[in-house]
Amino acid sequence: MSAVIYPKVALIGLGLIAGSMAHAMRRAGLAETITGYARSAETRKIAREINLVDEVCDSALEAARDADLVVLCVPVGVMGAVAAEIAPGLKPGAVVTDVGSVKAAVIEAVAPHIPEGVHFIPGHPLAGTEHSGPRSGFAELFDNRWCLLVPVEGSDPGEVARLTRYWEGLGSNVDVMDAEHHDLVLAVTSHAPHLIAYTMVGVADDLRRVTDSEVIKYSAAGFRDFTRIAASDPTMWRDVFLSNKAATLEILGRFTEELFALQRAIRTEDGDHLHDYFTRTRAIRRGIIDAGQDTDAPDFGRAVASKAKARTE
Amino acid sequence: MSAVIYPKVALIGLGLIAGSMAHAMRRAGLAETITGYARSAETRKIAREINLVDEVCDSALEAARDADLVVLCVPVGVMGAVAAEIAPGLKPGAVVTDVGSVKAAVIEAVAPHIPEGVHFIPGHPLAGTEHSGPRSGFAELFDNRWCLLVPVEGSDPGEVARLTRYWEGLGSNVDVMDAEHHDLVLAVTSHAPHLIAYTMVGVADDLRRVTDSEVIKYSAAGFRDFTRIAASDPTMWRDVFLSNKAATLEILGRFTEELFALQRAIRTEDGDHLHDYFTRTRAIRRGIIDAGQDTDAPDFGRAVASKAKARTE
Repeated sequence: MSAVIYPKVALIGLGLIAGSMAHAMRRAGLAETITGYARSAETRKIAREINLVDEVCDSALEAARDADLVVLCVPVGVMGAVAAEIAPGLKPGAVVTDVGSVKAAVIEAVAPHIPEGVHFIPGHPLAGTEHSGPRSGFAELFDNRWCLLVPVEGSDPGEVARLTRYWEGLGSNVDVMDAEHHDLVLAVTSHAPHLIAYTMVGVADDLRRVTDSEVIKYSAAGFRDFTRIAASDPTMWRDVFLSNKAATLEILGRFTEELFALQRAIRTEDGDHLHDYFTRTRAIRRGIIDAGQDTDAPDFGRAVASKAKARTE
Repeated sequence: MSAVIYPKVALIGLGLIAGSMAHAMRRAGLAETITGYARSAETRKIAREINLVDEVCDSALEAARDADLVVLCVPVGVMGAVAAEIAPGLKPGAVVTDVGSVKAAVIEAVAPHIPEGVHFIPGHPLAGTEHSGPRSGFAELFDNRWCLLVPVEGSDPGEVARLTRYWEGLGSNVDVMDAEHHDLVLAVTSHAPHLIAYTMVGVADDLRRVTDSEVIKYSAAGFRDFTRIAASDPTMWRDVFLSNKAATLEILGRFTEELFALQRAIRTEDGDHLHDYFTRTRAIRRGIIDAGQDTDAPDFGRAVASKAKARTE
């Protein structure tokens, strides 16, 4: 039995997500042909060298032509322009999806360009690393991670089911929700944490009385996890914040309120308030480990400590 | 040649740090006898069961009696009381050190109890995980991590050198600095990041329109690293914030200023400001990897992805 779900898949943009999709599609045999396009000539050159997809095209239109599935893997800010460019090449019955981190703004930008008879089903795989570029992908990126599909008005239920099977074939679990809820959930779980991490790393860098080398040498004390988050792609994240402005600002507003309350507890030496708060947040971590979204390895990302722990238990 | 640096070492408190010190001392043969004490009877029972140290005593005084090195591994808030308790058992020439995350407050609390002829040399190993308790330690915790020694007025240089060799024997690199600078550096690299992570996790938990299960399921998008930090021991961290109040509040004040500037950039859609900021913070991450304080593995803590990456490159 063939595992092919979409005979021809086009990846527009060839960064971490598209590259990982290509590896995972090949692992599972989900497509017969994978085409790809990246705006940067250097990226296209590397993609050809490493044989990332079957054919690297010199335009998005060419890559998308006659594809059964077109996946927009470009920064949120250029989704609309790319959709306009590929529209003339889309065949009837084709599915267009995307992997953008915000959904309402992408739908607003892309939907007007989708021709009659083509299915537009936005999506967002919740997976990534702090690396980017055509060499950064790997087949296991989506394994046991969530992919959120956000059907728009009039999305064909049969096509949503087919795209669900495709993402499951890439290794993901799939949930369906509407765009507004998606954008709020992601503001909490991703967008606000990223902005906060960027901010803290910037503060450390600015502080004149603590040298950069001290910040770097002593980062294992907690700061290191912030720098990992704050190393993510700047263009992608600029677009995320500008495109999910309302929800991000709302969550940051709530964050500031809570931070002020904890600062006041420190200032007034209200130890019980702090202890209660920290006890509550600890329980959330347990939930995440139980849900399989992280391991219990006590390593803060250090493989050696993780192995040591396994050995001593 | 014997590797013994202190024939008898007493560990007061038997949590993650003390347990890891016991494992690392045995690995390197740095002591002939290790005694230990924990306030909780349950912890003492477990420590005896797993043979964590050579002798688990039923009082801090008994554990510290005639020790060549006494290491205070208790929360910062009780360091003074513990020092008072052990003082009568300290022999002339003994060294007392600690592993507390703040130094000025610990020195103020402990120094008055140190008898004439006993050396007090405060310390702080920058290593840890989000786990705690007598079973959480492992020998490799300090390998290639920094330990900061903070000699007080009158500390004997020869004894500082001996304690430096001891920490190097545990696997650490050692730096020496004064208490005030230590507390500021740690406010930047550890204390403020922890409070910020606690705050963000608390916000997510409070938000009524996003369910707890959504926060947990979709945490891989960035939030997961915050929950890891925010799972650390509540009592230890309450004491850290109350004991390093001034420096922590100063850094949080700077953080709030920067966060407001970035929020304004989102609100006014100043994409260039965001992009420049994110590009700058990305460079700091590179410095930390180059300094050996983290790996380049693109896994956000996921061992499977890390291995996959190694395989595809």
